[in-house]
Amino acid sequence: MKIRVYYEDTDAGGIVYHTNYIKYCERARSELFFSRNLDPTDGEKSGFVVRHIDANFLGMAKLGDMLHVTTTLVKQKNASAVLRQTITRDNDKIFEMDITLVFVRNARPAITPEIFIDILEQL
Amino acid sequence: MKIRVYYEDTDAGGIVYHTNYIKYCERARSELFFSRNLDPTDGEKSGFVVRHIDANFLGMAKLGDMLHVTTTLVKQKNASAVLRQTITRDNDKIFEMDITLVFVRNARPAITPEIFIDILEQL
Amino acid sequence: MKIRVYYEDTDAGGIVYHTNYIKYCERARSELFFSRNLDPTDGEKSGFVVRHIDANFLGMAKLGDMLHVTTTLVKQKNASAVLRQTITRDNDKIFEMDITLVFVRNARPAITPEIFIDILEQL
Amino acid sequence: MKIRVYYEDTDAGGIVYHTNYIKYCERARSELFFSRNLDPTDGEKSGFVVRHIDANFLGMAKLGDMLHVTTTLVKQKNASAVLRQTITRDNDKIFEMDITLVFVRNARPAITPEIFIDILEQL
Repeated sequence: MKIRVYYEDTDAGGIVYHTNYIKYCERARSELFFSRNLDPTDGEKSGFVVRHIDANFLGMAKLGDMLHVTTTLVKQKNASAVLRQTITRDNDKIFEMDITLVFVRNARPAITPEIFIDILEQL
Repeated sequence: MKIRVYYEDTDAGGIVYHTNYIKYCERARSELFFSRNLDPTDGEKSGFVVRHIDANFLGMAKLGDMLHVTTTLVKQKNASAVLRQTITRDNDKIFEMDITLVFVRNARPAITPEIFIDILEQL
Repeated sequence: MKIRVYYEDTDAGGIVYHTNYIKYCERARSELFFSRNLDPTDGEKSGFVVRHIDANFLGMAKLGDMLHVTTTLVKQKNASAVLRQTITRDNDKIFEMDITLVFVRNARPAITPEIFIDILEQL
Repeated sequence: MKIRVYYEDTDAGGIVYHTNYIKYCERARSELFFSRNLDPTDGEKSGFVVRHIDANFLGMAKLGDMLHVTTTLVKQKNASAVLRQTITRDNDKIFEMDITLVFVRNARPAITPEIFIDILEQL
């Protein structure tokens, strides 16, 4: 997934504000569903929530940069999954994180729907 | 209402990103309700939505600035209201807008609850 | 320009937070430059700043929507320009604004560089 | 530091968008400087950058919540520091992260100014 850096993404330091790399990764995760015409929730009151993030900020993107987000599956369990997401510009790795997602229904962890598991396993 | 400018609010131009002044004004409107322990919605599926904004950007705020937002009522109708919101730093006016809000219930304009009208009329 | 609505763009009302339509329009303006490999500033300390916005919020976009932003030139002057930007989903107009931009150098209005005028006049 | 949850902070899931907890923590770090009338940079081209984040999302904040951010020093070195930042609502811990900051001057790690070390050691 390609993401352009706009003014809204930068801060007074002249570079991308740190949390925005994590937002770019969320866009890439959501796009896994949207691009298949799927809703990332499975009906109301359900969906993935973020439980844990371990992130390394390795470089600095700036206004106008074109970034690439890649997503791979590290671990899949019944009610949770760990993904590794990497952001690169050309061949430079700028950001990398492992993110743990929990599938939640009515505010409690629940079995992830099969179709969602399939999508993650194709990564 | 006092609002501090943080890194997230600024952009690579070194100043506050233009739409953030409009966000600050929304915080001030919501705080009218929160500070009275009221929910700005009146039950689910209802609340004010923004219909029109006429905004003048008169100055530039920067990182660390302490801004003040003031809100006055311009016009109150059954299902809508016009507010004027101004952002100043010390005595400099940085931003001013007239905003038209419509009270909506189930996606249709509806009579504004009395308690909300009272709050706006006290402005 | 096509823009997808992600979680970050929505709010607890279930729809796109109002200021984000204005951010989408900024992306479209910046992309006019980026897509030509141009920097929207003309060296440091210069660039367009927003002076005035007159915006109508006509509909509500929601998570996963694919929006289109179109930009036309309303008026071009030496140091400023008025653009009309419209956001549609399929054939529904969701948002429309007239935005006045001023070209600024060292914090003062300045003659807009020729190359920027050309880009705006092609709209 | 007290932080109110506004509409802009929430998403269509009805709760605070995950990266915003990390933004709240940045506000608290910046406020350490602003509240002492200090600039978090030490002249241009210098300041703290985020190198690593290890974050646990333990609860969900919602519109109107009043959150508290607390910051403690875990480790201080010449050119970097690790802080632990916790967000609570009443007595519930909602978010906790360890964040590694590197002091950078002209895009390279550099000795942290004494005054900044003092501020962190008072935490």
